[in-house]
Amino acid sequence: MKRRETVEQWFKSLQDSICSELEALDGGSQFREDLWNRPSGGGGRTRVITNGQLIEKGGVNFSAVHGPLPEKIQHSLKLPPSEFYGTGVSIVLHPENPWVPIIHMNVRYFETSGKNPEDPSTWWIGGGIDLTPHYVSREDGKHIHSSLKTVCDNIDEQYYSRFKKWADDYFYLKHRDETRGVGGIFYDRLNDQSENKSFDELWDFHQQVGEAFVPIYRHYAEKHRDKKPTEVAKNWQMVRRGRYVEFNLVWDKGTKFGLDTNGRTESILMSMPPQANWYYDQQPEEGTPEAETLKWLKKDIDWIGND
Amino acid sequence: MKRRETVEQWFKSLQDSICSELEALDGGSQFREDLWNRPSGGGGRTRVITNGQLIEKGGVNFSAVHGPLPEKIQHSLKLPPSEFYGTGVSIVLHPENPWVPIIHMNVRYFETSGKNPEDPSTWWIGGGIDLTPHYVSREDGKHIHSSLKTVCDNIDEQYYSRFKKWADDYFYLKHRDETRGVGGIFYDRLNDQSENKSFDELWDFHQQVGEAFVPIYRHYAEKHRDKKPTEVAKNWQMVRRGRYVEFNLVWDKGTKFGLDTNGRTESILMSMPPQANWYYDQQPEEGTPEAETLKWLKKDIDWIGND
Repeated sequence: MKRRETVEQWFKSLQDSICSELEALDGGSQFREDLWNRPSGGGGRTRVITNGQLIEKGGVNFSAVHGPLPEKIQHSLKLPPSEFYGTGVSIVLHPENPWVPIIHMNVRYFETSGKNPEDPSTWWIGGGIDLTPHYVSREDGKHIHSSLKTVCDNIDEQYYSRFKKWADDYFYLKHRDETRGVGGIFYDRLNDQSENKSFDELWDFHQQVGEAFVPIYRHYAEKHRDKKPTEVAKNWQMVRRGRYVEFNLVWDKGTKFGLDTNGRTESILMSMPPQANWYYDQQPEEGTPEAETLKWLKKDIDWIGND
Repeated sequence: MKRRETVEQWFKSLQDSICSELEALDGGSQFREDLWNRPSGGGGRTRVITNGQLIEKGGVNFSAVHGPLPEKIQHSLKLPPSEFYGTGVSIVLHPENPWVPIIHMNVRYFETSGKNPEDPSTWWIGGGIDLTPHYVSREDGKHIHSSLKTVCDNIDEQYYSRFKKWADDYFYLKHRDETRGVGGIFYDRLNDQSENKSFDELWDFHQQVGEAFVPIYRHYAEKHRDKKPTEVAKNWQMVRRGRYVEFNLVWDKGTKFGLDTNGRTESILMSMPPQANWYYDQQPEEGTPEAETLKWLKKDIDWIGND
């Protein structure tokens, strides 16, 4: 089987298994599927779940697109004009209960080739998982980081600290001097040349990241879903969701590219929360759980150790 | 009096008069004022009103800032390294009642000069007023356009059509193929050289735009404020506010610059609505007032004529 086929099939089966596991975990709602085609090549399967018992709004999207590399992406990736192929799975889940965190995963595979078949082609993988609790605790930060460190250590003992830092730097709201959440791992443009590892080794790692998603989310869902939300916590959730919107629309490169290059808007913006609120200059009172949370929204916290 | 002083004093008095007129119109709430300083030069008076009888959340901000021109702005305005001075008033009002429109105004004055006092310095004015009704009607579109055309015609009979088109092009959500609302006027970098008009003439026009704001908003507030909101209309308002968020965070140049160049985040993001909702792929049913509204969210509508 050609690599594109292998990769695409695996992403599709990952989407399938994650959706069925999330439906079972939710217990109250099912995914709705929209199939779409991209006019200039390829398409996707957007799956959205709403008003579940656990998940208020969530998307688990697969896409595989190809065609001439859009000029904006060409410039930003510093690539020559070429054909591209990109496929992957993207997930954002907004739980109803503010004690349960927001979670995000993306795993993707990308290829380019020159128009002339003699031109060298290149490929890479990119992605990661990160967690955005409305309320942060060390314990909750530690769990996702330990889980992801285990996955990383299986391939390379340098990876966790490298990709953890990458996530800290990426999921950062410069205009607030806040991280989006407790981070996780983020990596991009990894390939045989950058890593001195074979496609098979890197693909195996990428698959392990994809498979780590459900167990990580299940941990948080089961731990927190039965804790009754207070009015203060619901309100704080809406404020934190506002920050999520700010990150995704102002800083997230994937969202910007998608919107800028005629991607399917509704699939891209499935990441938007069902509701978000903004209050002018709201500062939580010192000593409240909300103020405590803000103290954790910093880069370079050693979640597994004892920072 | 030096020009900077004249301009700054006038913007301050505009802020004062608009705030007191809006408080009277609202009848239920007052502006809260925050004074702030910009570390690298200047500062502002942010005034925010919340939970009024008419206005759920609104800001009327004055600022006057100066210092070395931030590098990002330098590049985007294609200017050499220089000192800058910028002052103006920015307004966004989110009414509680969905039948009352969102309104936005910005009027600003900008100057740059080389570090060497021999360098030529340049100045310009920019701004405009535009309206974002949650529900659009031709009649409502016509009123703001007629009012602004009167202001424009006082200085130059070309201005209305030129600045109306500029607003259509600027207040446009490319990823939705929707305009933000019914538009209005937008202009930027107008000066003696671009317009072959004196500073006094252009400044007089700019002042008339600033003074047109309250009468325009009063018209809509008085016309619609007593119409009882339905649940469907409240919900639609939250969706349209979501689009407002999308425009401001994804496309608005002023917001991007501000957030990118360490502007005062809370003053910039006073434009965010108090609440916004996102539903996946929501399409209003044909024939509903919501579907009718979408048909009006297009560029190049001749609001004053009979398009």
